[in-house]
Amino acid sequence: MARLRQPAGRSVRRSGGERKPREQRWAQLIEVSTQVFYEKGYEAAALQDVADRVGMLKGSLYYYIQSKENLLFEVISTVHRDGMANIQSRAAIEGDPLQRLENVIIGHVEHTCRNLVPTAVFLHELSALSAERRQEVLGSEHAYQSVFRDLIEQAQRDGLVRPDVEPRLAALSVLGSTNWVYRWFRPGGAFDPETIGAQLAEMAVRGIATDEALAGREHRRVAVPAAGGS
Amino acid sequence: MARLRQPAGRSVRRSGGERKPREQRWAQLIEVSTQVFYEKGYEAAALQDVADRVGMLKGSLYYYIQSKENLLFEVISTVHRDGMANIQSRAAIEGDPLQRLENVIIGHVEHTCRNLVPTAVFLHELSALSAERRQEVLGSEHAYQSVFRDLIEQAQRDGLVRPDVEPRLAALSVLGSTNWVYRWFRPGGAFDPETIGAQLAEMAVRGIATDEALAGREHRRVAVPAAGGS
Repeated sequence: MARLRQPAGRSVRRSGGERKPREQRWAQLIEVSTQVFYEKGYEAAALQDVADRVGMLKGSLYYYIQSKENLLFEVISTVHRDGMANIQSRAAIEGDPLQRLENVIIGHVEHTCRNLVPTAVFLHELSALSAERRQEVLGSEHAYQSVFRDLIEQAQRDGLVRPDVEPRLAALSVLGSTNWVYRWFRPGGAFDPETIGAQLAEMAVRGIATDEALAGREHRRVAVPAAGGS
Repeated sequence: MARLRQPAGRSVRRSGGERKPREQRWAQLIEVSTQVFYEKGYEAAALQDVADRVGMLKGSLYYYIQSKENLLFEVISTVHRDGMANIQSRAAIEGDPLQRLENVIIGHVEHTCRNLVPTAVFLHELSALSAERRQEVLGSEHAYQSVFRDLIEQAQRDGLVRPDVEPRLAALSVLGSTNWVYRWFRPGGAFDPETIGAQLAEMAVRGIATDEALAGREHRRVAVPAAGGS
């Protein structure tokens, strides 16, 4: 899993009362850089654009980062870390593996809807990183996928997922369905994040669950319309 | 739906025996440009790169296209037209709307697996087009989405899809799941295009179908393992 790296350079000076302003500045730098990379694309974006928006001299940026690629790496690591923290907290909520998967899907969709810009930069600019750093992030992309796959595998062992489902393909299918939201969701559009999350989770769970798991799920639900009721 | 535009310029000369070589040259130009845009990214790619690979002088390219953006538009239109032709032919195969959707999904996945490079260029570089041309392609992306949505709506009217499914969200979910394949599929990997297509189609159909539709589907199948059989 990718860790947010400390800002580059002068780490000796990171102590005492100076710490908080620097961390705030760093968070602001990541936020502004994410926006600039989104609007201009990584290739066309310049460190000068970032400096102008945070109100720094370009030279002062080097107190925080060593290069534009270094900055992209930090932006992508940050997006990834936030997304992982979100789905891991959802996966930890009590329930059987299928219920936990449902929670993870809903959480991932809502997080994506509320973080369209960082998600777009993550998905579009990963290939702009050097081979080494791309590898570092690709390793952690698999960690992301593993949260979904592990829950599907557990659910399959528990008889909640059909035996003919390939857990890796199912995880990739769910990730595709939910990541894709960043391409079409617009705030204020026809569907809110909660509706999208609920619909996508429902389709994903039904797509892989055994009949028995679905029957038990209906049974647990309160206020569900009676099947065939009129 | 986007139509492949005629090569720009000198259309007066397009007649008789000259026609075929020119069309071959055009197809080669689109193929090579797609590869160059894929490898370098649209921004970094130069018309000189394309000229070098097709073995033309850069100046001769202007016989076929007016600008690099013009070339990107042609590349993206071509990908889109091929993809549309593929799913429309699948949608036309006889069957109920759910069977036709299943065929469309399988066809789309296999087409994506066999056209990774054009698909990646289409999905990554759409935003590099001018607002006007992007609009032209976005209109046709909706045409693509409509093939899926129309079948889901028909199936819902026929009682084959659950009434609480939102057809637009279901179509976007299926498109996300299947388009995403371009990011992770590699020829010679753990799963072949047929397996991926079959698994993704099965999950998608089960995700939206009514119990009655699924029961009828099982019933129609030959050589399906008996439920609970040992």
